[in-house]
Amino acid sequence: MTTHKIATADETAIRKLIDDWAAAVRAKDIDAVLAHHSPDILMFDVPPPFESRGIEAYRETWDLFYPMQPAPIAFDILGMDIVAGTEVAFVAAHMQCEEIGSGGKRSKLDFRLTMGLCKIDGRWTILHEHHSVPAT
Amino acid sequence: MTTHKIATADETAIRKLIDDWAAAVRAKDIDAVLAHHSPDILMFDVPPPFESRGIEAYRETWDLFYPMQPAPIAFDILGMDIVAGTEVAFVAAHMQCEEIGSGGKRSKLDFRLTMGLCKIDGRWTILHEHHSVPAT
Repeated sequence: MTTHKIATADETAIRKLIDDWAAAVRAKDIDAVLAHHSPDILMFDVPPPFESRGIEAYRETWDLFYPMQPAPIAFDILGMDIVAGTEVAFVAAHMQCEEIGSGGKRSKLDFRLTMGLCKIDGRWTILHEHHSVPAT
Repeated sequence: MTTHKIATADETAIRKLIDDWAAAVRAKDIDAVLAHHSPDILMFDVPPPFESRGIEAYRETWDLFYPMQPAPIAFDILGMDIVAGTEVAFVAAHMQCEEIGSGGKRSKLDFRLTMGLCKIDGRWTILHEHHSVPAT
C-alpha cells in the first residue's frame, strides 16, 4: 500500500481517532468505542455472525468480545497503514489482543483489521470494520 | 454503510473494475486478475499467511486458491457496498466461492471481502484486499 512520508491533516486525524478507539476498547468505555461510528456501520467480525449491520448490532459484537478477554484487556495496534483522501479513507492494521488458552493461560492473538471511513459534516466517521484471523 | 441512490461516475467505474476482476478470477486469467493492482498491494487472505505484501506475494495467493477450487470456478459477488470519494474509495462485499467437502461434493463457501482503492494517474487502483470467513 502507498504510505505517505509526511502525514496530511486527515491522516493525523484518522490515526488519533483509531488510537482513541483502541484505548476505549481497552478501557471498556463502550460509549467512547461507538463515538465515531455511523448509525449504518457494517461490521465483519472475527467470530460469527457473518456480518452485523447498524450501530446496535455493532454494539452487540462488543458484548461477545469482552467475556472472552482476560483483564487487563489487550487491544493493541502493532502497525497501521492509512490511505486518506479529503472525503473517504481506509486503514489496514495488524492488531493484537489476548485470549485464555485451554490451560487457563493468557496467549496473544494477532488479527487483521480494515476500516473504511467517510468525512461527514467535517468529522471522520467509521462506516465499515473488518476484523479477521486467517482460517485454519 | 452509506449507499448512494444515484451512482457517481467513480462508483460506476469501481463496480465495473470489481465485476471484471471477479470474472477474471473465474476465467483463471491471472494477468487480468492483477491488472488493476498496485505494486504495493497489501493482501489479508482467507488462508495463511497472515498478510502478503507486494504484487508477487499477491499473485502467490492465487496459486494457493486455484488448486482448492472445483471447476468450473465459482467466484460470485452476492452484494457490494461502494463508498467512493474522488481520490480514495472502499468496497465491502458478500462473496461466494465453492470448495470440495470431505465426501468429494461441491459446497458453497461464503466469505467477506473489503477492498481499498486509490485513483492513480486517473485510474482506480486496488491497494488493499481483505478476504475472510468468520472464525469457528
